[in-house]
Amino acid sequence: MATIKDVARQAGVSVATVSRVLNSAGYVHEDTRKKVEDAILALNYSPNEVARSLYKRKSKLIGLLIPDITNPYFPQVARGVEDEMRENDYRIIIGNSDENEQKELDYLQTFTQNNVVGVITLTNNPDTNTYTSFSLPVVFLDRTSHDKPSVYADGRQGGRLAAEAIIAGGSKEVTIMQGPAHVKPAQDRYQGAVEALEEAGMDYHVIQTSTFSFHNVDVLAKNLFDTYPSTDGVIASNDLAAIAVIHEAVKRGRRVPDDVQIVGFDDIPISGLLSPALSTIRQPAYEMGRAAARLLIHLIDNKHNMENYIQFPVEYIERNTTRKVARN
Amino acid sequence: MATIKDVARQAGVSVATVSRVLNSAGYVHEDTRKKVEDAILALNYSPNEVARSLYKRKSKLIGLLIPDITNPYFPQVARGVEDEMRENDYRIIIGNSDENEQKELDYLQTFTQNNVVGVITLTNNPDTNTYTSFSLPVVFLDRTSHDKPSVYADGRQGGRLAAEAIIAGGSKEVTIMQGPAHVKPAQDRYQGAVEALEEAGMDYHVIQTSTFSFHNVDVLAKNLFDTYPSTDGVIASNDLAAIAVIHEAVKRGRRVPDDVQIVGFDDIPISGLLSPALSTIRQPAYEMGRAAARLLIHLIDNKHNMENYIQFPVEYIERNTTRKVARN
Repeated sequence: MATIKDVARQAGVSVATVSRVLNSAGYVHEDTRKKVEDAILALNYSPNEVARSLYKRKSKLIGLLIPDITNPYFPQVARGVEDEMRENDYRIIIGNSDENEQKELDYLQTFTQNNVVGVITLTNNPDTNTYTSFSLPVVFLDRTSHDKPSVYADGRQGGRLAAEAIIAGGSKEVTIMQGPAHVKPAQDRYQGAVEALEEAGMDYHVIQTSTFSFHNVDVLAKNLFDTYPSTDGVIASNDLAAIAVIHEAVKRGRRVPDDVQIVGFDDIPISGLLSPALSTIRQPAYEMGRAAARLLIHLIDNKHNMENYIQFPVEYIERNTTRKVARN
Repeated sequence: MATIKDVARQAGVSVATVSRVLNSAGYVHEDTRKKVEDAILALNYSPNEVARSLYKRKSKLIGLLIPDITNPYFPQVARGVEDEMRENDYRIIIGNSDENEQKELDYLQTFTQNNVVGVITLTNNPDTNTYTSFSLPVVFLDRTSHDKPSVYADGRQGGRLAAEAIIAGGSKEVTIMQGPAHVKPAQDRYQGAVEALEEAGMDYHVIQTSTFSFHNVDVLAKNLFDTYPSTDGVIASNDLAAIAVIHEAVKRGRRVPDDVQIVGFDDIPISGLLSPALSTIRQPAYEMGRAAARLLIHLIDNKHNMENYIQFPVEYIERNTTRKVARN
């Protein structure tokens, strides 16, 4: 088996130079690098796996950061990223930040330490230093950012559609569950819903939620009906929250949708299988994942012929937690 | 900033030797290695991040392979692994095999290429060459294996408890959804259910399922009632399947649990929030994840004072898809 010495001899350079090439450490003239690389290929020199991944400097590994692996919305997104990356011969490693900024930093460090060539992040903190000073291509997914490439759904339109469905079904006392204040898409949805309700001249209540996760979603639903017991229409912050609201309403003897209408947001796979099946705003999670992957690959390949801000339309999916209305 | 040459001079060795130490490539005498490592520390020499991760040879990175990120059961397990690993200063990278053997192999390769120090795998193929010839510590989670450390739940007891609940509630015509034939815990559950039904002298139907995922679970539920329309008790292969069965039953005008009882398996977070809430067999997914992480850390540290086969008990969670029976 060839040694690093053999490579140095073949290339007519010192062992230190070969080492610098292998480690991408220190300056090596491009011609010299070429000679070393040729020698490595000619001799079929095989350092260990990681050294080899250094050698092929594009390691074809992508880091995907998701905020909460237990919310079924995010695994759908991850599948989209994964399928697109796989078809393009990239592999992904997934980190779960659990909506915790320290964990997020740890994972970003793990990604770079493992030589990823790019990152797709579903972060709640797109504008922190971490990202603005990041040296690799980054695509923000499901979160908008001021100066970085992003893929996201039209949250404002989504909030509007949800409110319009509730209004069309005849609710008189609507409660909006406002998502986490620091998550931009949550605020877009909220804004859209408020706009539609105000245009219709309707009053509404607001319940603040601090997370999109399962955590305390049942307490939140209880709190909603304790605070506003005569609520007859709920615009939920996402499908998980909507499921908890259905559960709590049924528990209190309220019929869904006859006494209370409920609209979710996301259209996670389980929502269509509920009884009653959940009316919701569909975000095309899987397709958004694929689009983010394509955008990142373009950035890695230094192609700039693609739009850097991709907004996906959302869609109202009418199922059985809203009242049917005749449409003309 | 110190260069590799400075390190070589300080250690009194050649640059090639330093390179060998950094790359773990080729033989270096232990004393020499020590000298190089001391020189690196003394000079605060900083090769790039990956070279550095080679230097601290225990990179503290763990690979976690899950079969289907979109089934809410697995993210719970992943959270358990992650929390335990984090508390012990390890980080994890997650791969999603999508129940595809080629993807699984790709991820295992990605893991080793990135210098993980151990792997936790929820594989459907524990006995393939891949694992028997694997050079790193491996813990099998939720899957039993003949010769490797494993953490799993008592599936046979789970199947038995599910059948007993259905029998106690008075079902006369029971259908068992048998999980994937190549997944051992699925077969354990099936066996336990069959045993309990036969001991009670009851006939039963069997519907075969090929996967645990969302994929086609609605078709499966339709198929169940098309084939055995007078089924009045269903032992589902997992909670996702149970949710689809509830949906299909309600759609056909059958009341749950009055006309059809249904028991799930897993107790995923959403099951308690359904309407009606799902009666199911709880596997302690999060705790199993933690236990697998502890076991792997023991193996990495070469401690052998821990049981290598950890079986967790399961528990029947009575909710509203089974009929209440007086207990004495």
